[in-house]
Amino acid sequence: MEIRKPYYHVVQYYETDAMGVVHHSNYIRWFEEARLDYLEQSGFPYGDIEERGLLIPVLAASCEYRLAVRFGEKVQIETDILKFNGLKFTVAYEIYDEKHQLLHARGNTEHCFLKQDFKPVSIKKQAPDLYEYFMHKTLHNR
Amino acid sequence: MEIRKPYYHVVQYYETDAMGVVHHSNYIRWFEEARLDYLEQSGFPYGDIEERGLLIPVLAASCEYRLAVRFGEKVQIETDILKFNGLKFTVAYEIYDEKHQLLHARGNTEHCFLKQDFKPVSIKKQAPDLYEYFMHKTLHNR
Amino acid sequence: MEIRKPYYHVVQYYETDAMGVVHHSNYIRWFEEARLDYLEQSGFPYGDIEERGLLIPVLAASCEYRLAVRFGEKVQIETDILKFNGLKFTVAYEIYDEKHQLLHARGNTEHCFLKQDFKPVSIKKQAPDLYEYFMHKTLHNR
Amino acid sequence: MEIRKPYYHVVQYYETDAMGVVHHSNYIRWFEEARLDYLEQSGFPYGDIEERGLLIPVLAASCEYRLAVRFGEKVQIETDILKFNGLKFTVAYEIYDEKHQLLHARGNTEHCFLKQDFKPVSIKKQAPDLYEYFMHKTLHNR
Repeated sequence: MEIRKPYYHVVQYYETDAMGVVHHSNYIRWFEEARLDYLEQSGFPYGDIEERGLLIPVLAASCEYRLAVRFGEKVQIETDILKFNGLKFTVAYEIYDEKHQLLHARGNTEHCFLKQDFKPVSIKKQAPDLYEYFMHKTLHNR
Repeated sequence: MEIRKPYYHVVQYYETDAMGVVHHSNYIRWFEEARLDYLEQSGFPYGDIEERGLLIPVLAASCEYRLAVRFGEKVQIETDILKFNGLKFTVAYEIYDEKHQLLHARGNTEHCFLKQDFKPVSIKKQAPDLYEYFMHKTLHNR
Repeated sequence: MEIRKPYYHVVQYYETDAMGVVHHSNYIRWFEEARLDYLEQSGFPYGDIEERGLLIPVLAASCEYRLAVRFGEKVQIETDILKFNGLKFTVAYEIYDEKHQLLHARGNTEHCFLKQDFKPVSIKKQAPDLYEYFMHKTLHNR
Repeated sequence: MEIRKPYYHVVQYYETDAMGVVHHSNYIRWFEEARLDYLEQSGFPYGDIEERGLLIPVLAASCEYRLAVRFGEKVQIETDILKFNGLKFTVAYEIYDEKHQLLHARGNTEHCFLKQDFKPVSIKKQAPDLYEYFMHKTLHNR
C-alpha cells in the first residue's frame, strides 16, 4: 500500500500582490510544485523523465479560488492522478492551509507526453514503467 | 458602436522556462493584463475601481494550451465579458500570435466585486455606472 | 550563543528560463526568502513586524552570479546582517548548492524601516527589541 | 548619429506585492526587457544571437531603489552600454516614471558571451559585427 505525503509550500512575500493576498497565478505554480513532488514520491523525479528524453507539457489548467492565502501561511496540497488513457492524464489538487485545514482552492491540470522535439511519444513503448504506474494509479481512482 | 483594440503582449525572456517556451502560469498573468486593459478601454481603469473602494478578485481561472508561445513572439489577446448576473461575471480570452494569427490558447476567468475589507458589495448601488456597463455588454453577448 | 540554521530552497521548474537554468531575477527573491527566515529565526517574523505597523523596504540589492543553478537542485543560503547604523542595515547572502557546497552566487541587500504610510520611523523608539537585536548582531560582525 | 528610443513598461498588477508597490525583484526583470530592447534597436535581436549559437548570461546585477513604483504607472527606462573589454560588458539603466520623469531606480548588469554549451567564446571571431558594435558604443561612452 502506498503512503504518500502531502506537499507543503511556505507562502513567500513576493507571491503576494497589492490586494495583500497571494496573486492567483501562483496557485498554478504551486500545482506544478505539488505535481513534481508527487512524481518524485512515485519514483519518477521530473529531472529523470527529461533525461530519458521526455517532456510533460501542460495542456490545460484550472483553479477555483475559495479563500485567499496570505503571507505567513503554509499551504498543504493534496495531489492525485485522476485519469490516464495511455496518452493524456489529469491531475487534481486541493490546497489547504496547514493550520486550520480549510480548503482554500482546488483545481486540475491536464498533460500529455512528448519527446524533446515536442513530437508525440508512446510512453507504453518509451517508458513502460511510467505507463504501468499511471495505469495502476488510475485503476484505483476510478 | 464600440471599437475595441486587442491587447498585445511582447513575450519576455524571463517568461520562458527550461522547455524553451513560455511557462504556462504566465498565460494567467496575461489574462489579467488583457482584462485590465479591457476595463481601461471601457472607461474603468482598475486603479479608479480600487480608489472607489472596490476589489475585483478572481474566483476561478482556466486555460487550454494549444500551441506553445516562444520568446521573440508578440501575442494578441481578444477579450470579452461573457456573462454577468449582477454579482459575478465571466471573462473569456483568446491568445493569438500577432504574426500568423494562430490560436495558441484560450481561457476564462470568473470574478465578483468586493469592498476593500473583502466583504461583498452590491455594485448596482455602489457603482451603478459599472453595473450598467456590464449589463449592457453581456446583453449583446447573449 | 546563537545557533542559526541555513535556509534551504528547492529549485522550482517555473524558476528556470530558456537557457535551461534558473533565471537570475529569482536569486533576488531567494534573498528575500532567506532574509525573512533569518528574521523569523531571530524571533522577529516579518508578519509580526508588519502588525506592529512597520515595513522593511529594500533600498538596494546586488547579486554576483558564479555558477548556474538548475532545476532539481536544492540551494543552501547563508545569511547575515552586516551593518546597522540605527536607521539602515545591510544583509549579506551566499548561495551554495546543498550537495556539493559550491558557491553559486552571493549578494547584498540594503534596507531601512518605515511606517505603513512609507514615512521614516525611529525603531529605537518604536521597536526597541528589534533595535537591540540588530545592534547586538552587528557588533559581533564588525 | 544614433537615435535611440527609451524602453517603456506598463506596470502590471501581478508585479505588485502586499506593500502595495512593485516588488523589487521585478526591476531586475525590467532591466532585462530594456536590455533586449536595446540590443534589438541596435540591430541584434536576442533571438538572432541565440540562433547564432551564443548566450549572454548575467554575471552580476545591482539596483538602487529610490522611489516606489505603483500599479497604473508606466516606467521609462534609459539604457546604455557602459563598458566592454572584448569579453565582458556592463549595461546601465535608469528607471523613470513617464509622467513626472522622476528617477525611481537605477542599476547595472554585467555580462559575458558564451556558446550554447556554456563555454567561453571569442565574439571577435564568432560575431565580429557584434564585437564592432560594442566597441564602437563604448568608445563613445568613455
